Amino acid sequence: MASDRTLLPLARARQPLYAGLDLGGTNIKSALVDDAGDVVAFHSEPTHASRGPEDAAARMGRAVHALASRVGVAAADIARVGLGSPGPLDLEAGTIVRAGNLPGWDGFPLRDRVASHAGCAVTFANDANAAAYGEFWVGSARGASSLVLLTLGTGVGGGIIIGDVNVEGAHSHGSECGHMIVDPSPAARMCPCGQPGHLEAYASATSLTAMAAEQLAAGVGGTLAEAVAAGEQLTPILLAREAERGDRVAHGVLMDAARWLGIGIVSLMHAIDPAVVALGGAMTFGRDDHPVGRAFLARIRDEVHRRTFPLLAERTSICYAGLGGDAGAIGAAGLARLAHRGHSG
Amino acid sequence: MASDRTLLPLARARQPLYAGLDLGGTNIKSALVDDAGDVVAFHSEPTHASRGPEDAAARMGRAVHALASRVGVAAADIARVGLGSPGPLDLEAGTIVRAGNLPGWDGFPLRDRVASHAGCAVTFANDANAAAYGEFWVGSARGASSLVLLTLGTGVGGGIIIGDVNVEGAHSHGSECGHMIVDPSPAARMCPCGQPGHLEAYASATSLTAMAAEQLAAGVGGTLAEAVAAGEQLTPILLAREAERGDRVAHGVLMDAARWLGIGIVSLMHAIDPAVVALGGAMTFGRDDHPVGRAFLARIRDEVHRRTFPLLAERTSICYAGLGGDAGAIGAAGLARLAHRGHSG
Repeated sequence: MASDRTLLPLARARQPLYAGLDLGGTNIKSALVDDAGDVVAFHSEPTHASRGPEDAAARMGRAVHALASRVGVAAADIARVGLGSPGPLDLEAGTIVRAGNLPGWDGFPLRDRVASHAGCAVTFANDANAAAYGEFWVGSARGASSLVLLTLGTGVGGGIIIGDVNVEGAHSHGSECGHMIVDPSPAARMCPCGQPGHLEAYASATSLTAMAAEQLAAGVGGTLAEAVAAGEQLTPILLAREAERGDRVAHGVLMDAARWLGIGIVSLMHAIDPAVVALGGAMTFGRDDHPVGRAFLARIRDEVHRRTFPLLAERTSICYAGLGGDAGAIGAAGLARLAHRGHSG
Repeated sequence: MASDRTLLPLARARQPLYAGLDLGGTNIKSALVDDAGDVVAFHSEPTHASRGPEDAAARMGRAVHALASRVGVAAADIARVGLGSPGPLDLEAGTIVRAGNLPGWDGFPLRDRVASHAGCAVTFANDANAAAYGEFWVGSARGASSLVLLTLGTGVGGGIIIGDVNVEGAHSHGSECGHMIVDPSPAARMCPCGQPGHLEAYASATSLTAMAAEQLAAGVGGTLAEAVAAGEQLTPILLAREAERGDRVAHGVLMDAARWLGIGIVSLMHAIDPAVVALGGAMTFGRDDHPVGRAFLARIRDEVHRRTFPLLAERTSICYAGLGGDAGAIGAAGLARLAHRGHSG
């Protein structure tokens, strides 16, 4: 279902304006954002991935025009468009190399077709990097010098921003923090990418439910086991609910994921030393507003603090991300702004 | 013992000139470097750490003047000075926070005292980052878009350069790649920093000799055991010699260190995706010129290739560093050049 929001009144927006597009397997979000990072208008519509990339590119171009006309500016007043896409990407070619939830889109000239439909130059970025730039620009790391964002969902995505540099990598594979090796042992869990021991194999929704299912299959009882036996589906939401009720399996699996996240975060801190490490995505259990979200973050911090240098334990901010699901579109607009100002491609 | 070299004739040097200082526990190296990264003159003298930091700062200032007068330019013709120092540092304050091989130097205003003695602004950097910038500018990563340098010596140092950004970190702790966690298990080896499971605990000269000593103590025989029983000291050089002769312990320890390096490098590749990963420092076993050096690198590449994505395995260059012991001074001059050109502090 499409949805629209108009936010900051145009009269108060700082020029120039930028458009950000966040392409996902389910929805395409688009935002018209002013020079200070305030959202002037927002739009969301289904991706309809099966209709193919040319159809989506045309709709993304139309969405940019619709946002502009909705607030009463000409499309030509938009300085540049940013497009965040699931990856891995070929940033130079402007194409998707392989995206699990957009089957058949590989190799399609996505960046250039969106640019053609929008009538405007497009900055192309990995969706996780775009979200990280959004958090860096106007979210949880606003005003900080650097950020690592881990996006916890079906997988574990990453985005690294240092100063105004979006760490895209020399081969478009930068910031794939979910594929850092946290467990080198022969008994390591397998990541969906096919390699063993990656952070994603221990801290994604997929791996959490798999770990819980293994314990239930081994006969460990409790309220989670009862709920599943009664027909409820084993999801991260169910795990969070049962963890709150004190179920041993659910609580244990969440705390174990938090421990592995702490290990991965320490390696990132010792390699990059960011000002802020933010955790976003759906698998954050209500964040600071919910006891399970607070316990999850506390366990992550505890593991980091016992494994890092005292100065970093004291000074590095480890927190939940602030922009929620809008980070990708806002960040894509921010990357367009960076490119427009000549900082990057 | 002090030593001097004059290299590129001044008439062929591209202006402006920069001076680079590489402060070590044993020696202070200084280089006069032209705008293209060619060394015009080089000087090395003992650090005499016990004489204290003010004495060394004065000699570093004099070394800059001596380099200038040796090639016949005024000290005022040097645009800026770069200073690489063992860390961790407080880059903002220009001080050493804690350096094992410069006891008692903590908190001394090193950057500003060298600037005062040299009569020139000084760019202050971690020594491993300075070496990485040297390799990026005119060494093994010349012309590449990014570099991770691992310096294998008594410890494992790191330097990360992305574009023209030296990853110093938000709290002066960036690029401490030797302290990434490669082994999270309770049985992990202890790093000299006091934390378990760090790369340095598996791939430094200290850890290699410790691992070999453990096997000898457990009674594993061979030519290494015989050499040590005959009174030879257990050093990485002895390990390399005996590995070449086919000793099982020596060969096994080297290959194991290479395996751990491969694991750490994969995590760095998946977080940063550099164009080049270079290995420098004393513990590189003759590098490409020696069979043990070649076998060590081949084992690292093998571990990386079996654990990374095919595209990165194919395209990421994993090689030995090219500048040897001069990288720190050249890179410090390069960072001074960056600062002079306004790219960084």
